[in-house]
Amino acid sequence: MTVGKAAFVVVPEGSVTTPAGFRAGGLHCGLKKTERHDLGVIVCEVPAQAAGVYTLNQFQAAPLGVTKESIAEGGTLQVMLVNSGNANACTGQQGVDDARAMRAAGAKAFGVAEHLVGVTSTGVIGELLPMGKVLPGIERLPAGVSADGGDDFCQAILTTDLVKKEICVSLTVGGTTVHIAGAAKGSGMIHPNMATMLGFITTDANVASADLQKLLNEVTDSTFNMITVDGDTSTNDMVVVMASGLAGGEALTPQHADWEAFKAAFAFVGEHLAKAIARDGEGATKLVEVTITGADSKEAARAIAKTVIGSSLVKTAVYGADANWGRIIAAVGRAGYKVETEKVDVRLGDITVLEQSRPVKFDEERAAEYLKGDFVLIHVDLHMGDVSATAWGCDLTYDYVRINAAYRT
Amino acid sequence: MTVGKAAFVVVPEGSVTTPAGFRAGGLHCGLKKTERHDLGVIVCEVPAQAAGVYTLNQFQAAPLGVTKESIAEGGTLQVMLVNSGNANACTGQQGVDDARAMRAAGAKAFGVAEHLVGVTSTGVIGELLPMGKVLPGIERLPAGVSADGGDDFCQAILTTDLVKKEICVSLTVGGTTVHIAGAAKGSGMIHPNMATMLGFITTDANVASADLQKLLNEVTDSTFNMITVDGDTSTNDMVVVMASGLAGGEALTPQHADWEAFKAAFAFVGEHLAKAIARDGEGATKLVEVTITGADSKEAARAIAKTVIGSSLVKTAVYGADANWGRIIAAVGRAGYKVETEKVDVRLGDITVLEQSRPVKFDEERAAEYLKGDFVLIHVDLHMGDVSATAWGCDLTYDYVRINAAYRT
Repeated sequence: MTVGKAAFVVVPEGSVTTPAGFRAGGLHCGLKKTERHDLGVIVCEVPAQAAGVYTLNQFQAAPLGVTKESIAEGGTLQVMLVNSGNANACTGQQGVDDARAMRAAGAKAFGVAEHLVGVTSTGVIGELLPMGKVLPGIERLPAGVSADGGDDFCQAILTTDLVKKEICVSLTVGGTTVHIAGAAKGSGMIHPNMATMLGFITTDANVASADLQKLLNEVTDSTFNMITVDGDTSTNDMVVVMASGLAGGEALTPQHADWEAFKAAFAFVGEHLAKAIARDGEGATKLVEVTITGADSKEAARAIAKTVIGSSLVKTAVYGADANWGRIIAAVGRAGYKVETEKVDVRLGDITVLEQSRPVKFDEERAAEYLKGDFVLIHVDLHMGDVSATAWGCDLTYDYVRINAAYRT
Repeated sequence: MTVGKAAFVVVPEGSVTTPAGFRAGGLHCGLKKTERHDLGVIVCEVPAQAAGVYTLNQFQAAPLGVTKESIAEGGTLQVMLVNSGNANACTGQQGVDDARAMRAAGAKAFGVAEHLVGVTSTGVIGELLPMGKVLPGIERLPAGVSADGGDDFCQAILTTDLVKKEICVSLTVGGTTVHIAGAAKGSGMIHPNMATMLGFITTDANVASADLQKLLNEVTDSTFNMITVDGDTSTNDMVVVMASGLAGGEALTPQHADWEAFKAAFAFVGEHLAKAIARDGEGATKLVEVTITGADSKEAARAIAKTVIGSSLVKTAVYGADANWGRIIAAVGRAGYKVETEKVDVRLGDITVLEQSRPVKFDEERAAEYLKGDFVLIHVDLHMGDVSATAWGCDLTYDYVRINAAYRT
């Protein structure tokens, strides 16, 4: 794949353990009721340069603060622990103590300093972690960690996601081949309360923590932050990146000639995972992409894209394969940014339905056929400037209601 | 009913024609496919002092601008026309011309000046009004207008609302008995694109247009603007109030001793209609009320109440009778206003589920029983100040998806 002068390739069967220095694993410790993995780990041979982004929900789960503490200490992580089945959110001081105890147990099990361990959780809000299950599970983790453990790790972070979400790309920077891999969970919930997006990105490139953090912030804004399944921001959302540097070669900084290529590959990984989460949204039958072009600011383009992708009326129309552009235009008009209401074009795939804000006669049957596919592109051109943004989401279906109206227990 | 020192009574079988001077009517002119009313009118014996509030959606439908023009001319309206089945939105200059032609036809039919006529529409976006049906319909309207026409009018503004929504109260101001009545439509849609909230309030009190406008703005903020069915703001939302002054008595101004009583009665009418719209939301099985107390500002209280009532996860949990408070707290935490995350109480009806942000052991069966009722109160106390706000909405059900995934035609 070539993005401008940036070129990278997708590594077939690649996982978070493909970048040099990474191993992973997962096991069942008893948090999920069935015998599925509910505890996972990514381990690096060396302290990896690390960066993280965290939910903006004020009720931030306890483990997020503990991971932040770890990264703040030295900008590095060597062990990233994750459990599913319990979010350790709204659990007060006991929750913080439990997250710290997880970290301490991880440090002991893998023989590293505590500040080299990150922890994260996804699951039910408001229940204390059953530490009698978690701590023995952590003790058992090292025995099962391997270079082939990417799949075990992916299993451990799923709740009711229908598919695991991972990707690995490689590219050459300064003459050295480096890898960037990612795994994510999100949006598939049978037990409500588990609305969490988690992302884990590994790379063997030689990038320092501060540069990683800037890169992650930038990429998160245009990928993970541009997906919506139901508009509800979790208490546990988090994306962590770990860079082992073990590909060798010179340090990669924003001043390096190949930084843009690396950034493009990194952004591809983020976008791939973000879209995979949206496509696997609760009850979803299709991936919906909303692209806004011709905006006069990035903020406007993003806000309008997110308003359209988040509209329940747009989402149900897409589910019903109804080319109901009035709902799209109504969402554009309430997004909170000024638009020139006489200038807007709307296209569904390559079918123009509105031009200069005037309805265009289109083939309704062909439009319905297009909307029945498993990928739907909604393109809104505002003709006000040259800024664009893209957001991803999914349709709103009976299954969304079924999944989320089901009782927790 | 007594609200503080304000006292008013609900008039049994009262309608928009109960206040002195008002008549109403409705008929079928051919906009709806079945023989149901699709054209309605409220007429006042005299030019009534008038005020209006209009959607903030930038793609504002043509008739709203025309009604604004009319009220701007002299602060009065005598004839208020409404059609359902076609929104006259996104229809360009032709739409404006059509709205003006409706106004001119109304003026001619009822023998009043054009600036005494308001017009409004609700229905499909992006289709031109079939004026060949609308104009003859308007000509036929006067013959059917009567003091008993409130029901005909209500039928004419419905699309697929399950119930008509009207209310009338009376109270004594300055020794004179006055009435305030209202009718509304909203939230029941079989043909998508018809997401419109319309409100019509009549009174025989002697209130000037400017004071009516201030009162309407204030009351709208705490009533109509506090309901959410699906978060999608229509292009056609509008509330109009007409005051005939025919109850007699002195002018009623904000300086009048009975102004607060009048305001309380007026607010009751607004709240009654707003709640009726929410309860009749698409696919709804229950009315949900979210009350935020202990906020430190009105803006925060309102934003948090609206975020909770608008959360798809909260709405599906209520539908499923699941006391899933984690979703409530997650919505509170993402509403965009600072909360003290260790201090929050959450109650479902009188069942406390969270106290000082700590889970409270509660009887899950009793909570499920409560949530199965047709009215659910969610009360969040932030313990930060003494400001409160209430929002209304409904649950998110299979029927919502069915109604909105159905093809337009």
